Amino acid sequence: MSAKIISGKILSQKLNSNLKNSIAQIQDFRPPKLTIIQVGDNSASNKYIKNKLASCKKVGIETDLLRFDENITESQLEKELIKLNNDNLVDGILVQLPLPKHINEKIIKNLISVNKDADGFNPQTLGNVLLDDTDIYPATPLGIIKLLESENINLLGANVTIIGRSNIVGKPLATILINKSATVTICNTKTKNLAKVCRQADILISAAGTAKLVTKKFVNKNMTVIDVGANFVNGIYCGDVDFEKVSKIVKYITPVPGGVGPMTISCLLENVYKLYIKHSYNK
Amino acid sequence: MSAKIISGKILSQKLNSNLKNSIAQIQDFRPPKLTIIQVGDNSASNKYIKNKLASCKKVGIETDLLRFDENITESQLEKELIKLNNDNLVDGILVQLPLPKHINEKIIKNLISVNKDADGFNPQTLGNVLLDDTDIYPATPLGIIKLLESENINLLGANVTIIGRSNIVGKPLATILINKSATVTICNTKTKNLAKVCRQADILISAAGTAKLVTKKFVNKNMTVIDVGANFVNGIYCGDVDFEKVSKIVKYITPVPGGVGPMTISCLLENVYKLYIKHSYNK
Repeated sequence: MSAKIISGKILSQKLNSNLKNSIAQIQDFRPPKLTIIQVGDNSASNKYIKNKLASCKKVGIETDLLRFDENITESQLEKELIKLNNDNLVDGILVQLPLPKHINEKIIKNLISVNKDADGFNPQTLGNVLLDDTDIYPATPLGIIKLLESENINLLGANVTIIGRSNIVGKPLATILINKSATVTICNTKTKNLAKVCRQADILISAAGTAKLVTKKFVNKNMTVIDVGANFVNGIYCGDVDFEKVSKIVKYITPVPGGVGPMTISCLLENVYKLYIKHSYNK
Repeated sequence: MSAKIISGKILSQKLNSNLKNSIAQIQDFRPPKLTIIQVGDNSASNKYIKNKLASCKKVGIETDLLRFDENITESQLEKELIKLNNDNLVDGILVQLPLPKHINEKIIKNLISVNKDADGFNPQTLGNVLLDDTDIYPATPLGIIKLLESENINLLGANVTIIGRSNIVGKPLATILINKSATVTICNTKTKNLAKVCRQADILISAAGTAKLVTKKFVNKNMTVIDVGANFVNGIYCGDVDFEKVSKIVKYITPVPGGVGPMTISCLLENVYKLYIKHSYNK
């Protein structure tokens, strides 16, 4: 038997279409606006930014791309951010990472106002996520929750195992799932008997960044597998899961590409819209 | 065979004594200062505050107790907090909880400057804890880490199970342990087969608030058991663990009283001292 594939591509199109409708219904007021800051000319960043700008355009979010020379000083970049924090016409701010080495990413992430934190990387946003006191979440964890909810996969009391403990996926995702009453286990490279730990889960989420890490030894037949991996092997884009073999065993699985990836952009757009609504409503 | 008892009472006395020495060595400058805000006249709060004031005094931390009538408005309390945030002679601020119902605790916790957040309850502090980018932690989780470290109990790759997911113990403690490369499982009241999940752990930390929840079915002979419970049963103060039976099986155990409790106060004092050092150093 083969697993049911949870398509992030289809779900994200649906969410984007809903968002487009919501934005189209805004009357007598400007549309939402996202400002992206890019420092330097990293080719991967160029590609990611192009995707984000195109996605914003499709749903009706205005964008502004501020490109700075890679030699910009930290204090100059800080001034630009403060300007954007104070600009009433900007709803969301996103600083494309990585930044050049002479700029402290932590300081920059801290400086983006929590009220304009489109990526959800500000410590205060993450603290609010832990406290279950926000509707702004880092985009990838939020995308994963939406994928699970789209198939009505039960979280309450479910055993969820996460491989990976990054600041943008593993740790915030764990706190969201804890708040949803799942029993959550977070694994890392030091975990003993990783396959065994994973095999006990109802839901296995791999955000390790290692191709073919999750083999059939890691899974069971009632399991939902969410593959957050974004790896390139011999030029081919793939996830963490040995999809061909694992998909024959488990109940639900997300593909790569077309799984978590498109959801991340959808959730970024949703964050901008939510920030806009708060921003406009508070005026 | 009986477990080795990890005494929080003894460890906290040692830490307090070290802290007292550090403070005594401060020359040509004022000592650290903690300001406690109390609203109303809750008798449990009176007791807790009395303990905190006495502990501060013992190590040489100055204190100020600001007591407000229980009818103080939220905006008046906010003004008082802003005054303290701006007062250069105050290093740490602690708002004794619970607050009267007409005051929004979240707003108040948010308002305490992250630079004076003695309790570590501010969302930004918690976000920094998740990001492993702070030396200020909520006091109880920090106390638990110190108890484990005092016996050189290995955390790297260890299976740690936490029962309870509160904002002040379970969730921040989980993020600290994840950052220390433990494999962490967080359980709650919806967890299936709780005893079985717990029995697999190297370290079991119970912060459930249910007397005798952790029985011999929950443990194994190589386990370290940390009891965060603070329950009253027929007027007797006890933890979550059936100490008499469990202590005969496991390797290490903390008692109640005399385990985590005294560590919490020690770690609060340490937070005030650390905030003071930063505060003084930045001047």
